Amino acid sequence: MSVTEQLARFVVESQLDDIPENIYKEALRAIVNYMGCAIGGANEPAMEVALDTLLPFTGKPSTQVLGRVETCDPLYAALFNGIGSHVHEYDDTLPKNYIHPSIPVASALFAYASANRDGNQIVTGKEFLHAFILGFDVESRIGNAVYPAHYDAGWHITSTTGVFGAAAAIGKLLKLDVRQMVWAFGLAATQAAGVREMFGSMAKSFQPGRAAQNGYTSALLAQRDFTAGEAALEGPRGFAPVTASSYDLDKITYQLGEHYELLDNAYKPYACGLVVHPTIDACSQIREQYGVAPEDIKEISLRVAPIVLDLCNKQELKRALQSKYSIYHAAAIGLVRGKGGLREFTDEAVADPVLSDLRSKTKAQGDETITGDQVDVNIKLKSGESIHFFLEASLGNVERPLSNVQLDDKFIDQSTLVLPRDQVDKLLGACWDMESSDNVGQIVDLAVKK
Amino acid sequence: MSVTEQLARFVVESQLDDIPENIYKEALRAIVNYMGCAIGGANEPAMEVALDTLLPFTGKPSTQVLGRVETCDPLYAALFNGIGSHVHEYDDTLPKNYIHPSIPVASALFAYASANRDGNQIVTGKEFLHAFILGFDVESRIGNAVYPAHYDAGWHITSTTGVFGAAAAIGKLLKLDVRQMVWAFGLAATQAAGVREMFGSMAKSFQPGRAAQNGYTSALLAQRDFTAGEAALEGPRGFAPVTASSYDLDKITYQLGEHYELLDNAYKPYACGLVVHPTIDACSQIREQYGVAPEDIKEISLRVAPIVLDLCNKQELKRALQSKYSIYHAAAIGLVRGKGGLREFTDEAVADPVLSDLRSKTKAQGDETITGDQVDVNIKLKSGESIHFFLEASLGNVERPLSNVQLDDKFIDQSTLVLPRDQVDKLLGACWDMESSDNVGQIVDLAVKK
Repeated sequence: MSVTEQLARFVVESQLDDIPENIYKEALRAIVNYMGCAIGGANEPAMEVALDTLLPFTGKPSTQVLGRVETCDPLYAALFNGIGSHVHEYDDTLPKNYIHPSIPVASALFAYASANRDGNQIVTGKEFLHAFILGFDVESRIGNAVYPAHYDAGWHITSTTGVFGAAAAIGKLLKLDVRQMVWAFGLAATQAAGVREMFGSMAKSFQPGRAAQNGYTSALLAQRDFTAGEAALEGPRGFAPVTASSYDLDKITYQLGEHYELLDNAYKPYACGLVVHPTIDACSQIREQYGVAPEDIKEISLRVAPIVLDLCNKQELKRALQSKYSIYHAAAIGLVRGKGGLREFTDEAVADPVLSDLRSKTKAQGDETITGDQVDVNIKLKSGESIHFFLEASLGNVERPLSNVQLDDKFIDQSTLVLPRDQVDKLLGACWDMESSDNVGQIVDLAVKK
Repeated sequence: MSVTEQLARFVVESQLDDIPENIYKEALRAIVNYMGCAIGGANEPAMEVALDTLLPFTGKPSTQVLGRVETCDPLYAALFNGIGSHVHEYDDTLPKNYIHPSIPVASALFAYASANRDGNQIVTGKEFLHAFILGFDVESRIGNAVYPAHYDAGWHITSTTGVFGAAAAIGKLLKLDVRQMVWAFGLAATQAAGVREMFGSMAKSFQPGRAAQNGYTSALLAQRDFTAGEAALEGPRGFAPVTASSYDLDKITYQLGEHYELLDNAYKPYACGLVVHPTIDACSQIREQYGVAPEDIKEISLRVAPIVLDLCNKQELKRALQSKYSIYHAAAIGLVRGKGGLREFTDEAVADPVLSDLRSKTKAQGDETITGDQVDVNIKLKSGESIHFFLEASLGNVERPLSNVQLDDKFIDQSTLVLPRDQVDKLLGACWDMESSDNVGQIVDLAVKK
């Protein structure tokens, strides 16, 4: 049996009770984190422009968009949900393959649940979580197979694998048979796209949104027997060989149904690219421990994992979005503000002369001995003194996960930018209680502007 | 100035009168060929399923779909036009880069022209052709830069470059400025997708259709200043480096505005993959010259360009679509039927025992000395005699182009499958006369079912 068919069969045959309870619990944490991001990003310019441009083209307004007052068809809702939930770069990450896994899958699923409100089409909380867990697993396993060559080549792995995850999740709710699920993966492969050259622009968050929309479309077409190639992943012109100079297909099926990828998920304490998190964390701790004032600093030297400079080597910033990918900005906000919330990545923060001055005093050097969770910081003060700080593991990674309470705080911090506090509290409660929901569409009702 | 910006500036600054008259004439030939394909493919199963599945999700029905009675929003119309016009594999081809260039560009443009019927949004024939010529040029030049590595890797180059062509053409009609056109190319790069693993399935024609739809969407978003990376083509994580192991960006700007890629276009005499055309042509000529009966044939040996076996090495066929990619089927239909029209690539033709028998008696060998336009045929007869035939240049290639009369015949042969003859004649006349049209939407009126 081909890898594509094995993966399809796993999704099709999985039963609600096959999934261990701890996986459902982790899925809830991922959903809470996702929903906070989706609400918190709902008013961003990328969302406003996308909605203004594309709402005139959407179909019947059956579906609510998270954090918004507008309605549209479920496919465009999947796109908009994806843009909003990714735009702040505050979403979850799989450190092992750099996928932001919940965006494409949950964006499609919430759109589906909002659109399907009648009879046996209604999605219960348990069904939603089951489909989410499977979509997440499909996406991450495909990512494992092609990482790192695929990512290093320049692919935005969140969108290129996310389209498979969304197809699997929606295909599960549509009750596709194995043959149809294989076609859904083929149609996903056909639409797998997104390049890292777009990082720092609105197009970045468009990519996982489009993956959600396209994965959803793939499942719909496959349900009607729209045919596709049957070796989407492993065929000589399939996804893995075409997009990765080296890959390991065994990683797709390794411990399939035994290990769930959700257990490797991480939630961001800071609203920016994951690889600069250790620097924010370390500099925040230096600020806390040493009480350094910005004007006393002569020079900041960072030793970071080489990928950090690969992704985040922008020192002179023009736009807010660019600040999310600047190791120099990360050091500055840690030392000056001691945090990396949404307000640290605005046009105002970019223009802040204190932050700008510290960015220009920061040097960063790639070092193969530093892992992606670590940073080594050396600060020279004008007094002649110096401070050395080595961070072993950054907050929010798998070893130092955010607690449920920290996830609540993050959720409230984001969501209150857009929704009233009493609605935020109700929505948060409904997300944690999803397993007992008999209609996830009603959770979406709590997630939109009145 | 970056390559992306040079290309954007060329499209934005091009004036109607900059384009030589012979290019407009060739554009008309491409449009006539395109329209015949779009009408001829409009009733195919891939179209029926796509329409059944996706019409419930489309927006305001402002736009007609070529060859159909249904209406939808222009973005989905671009998708449907693309599926219908490519599904028979009867469309044009650039032999130098294997792009089927008209599909993504014209599919988007006819959707745009049908949707925009009021005031200064109306598209005149001259404006339509101008945008078509520019979109075609953009798409082919990007293809030239990444071919052959990109295609050899497994990318369906028609869709991956077509999304740029559609973005350029629609962006021209929307009067984007240079900065916006750069973003449109960025959004196209973000959505560039399509893998050759899907060849032989419905997903194949979906790919250039989706490219038309996505390119159109890119231009709309860019018009509203939805930002994208500004080095879509040449940036280290841009289209060329990510999708091709070797590439030559100079080919994008070489003789820009002096040479137009349309002059290198070729129109297919046979309704199947281009690389098997020499074999159909040669075997048809053998049938004509020698009057060989199928039952007299013992063995057929072909020496073909290596790419032919790369693409078309299917000997046992199950589905009609597969027959379009079978060098064995090509030999059989040439020898038995002397042609390769739409009826030679049906389920009936696949099941025809005479054709099936000849397919099984055919051997094909790749030979580096044989070009893509050539074939060397050796036939052993049961009588002991043998026939040798070497074809130097296949009908329909740039050296032996179809005449306008042959294009008319092809158009009528296809279109009368779907539309009444009197309507076909009017539509054909209107296409040839496009330069004098003051509203291309009215040409689309002639191209739909009443």
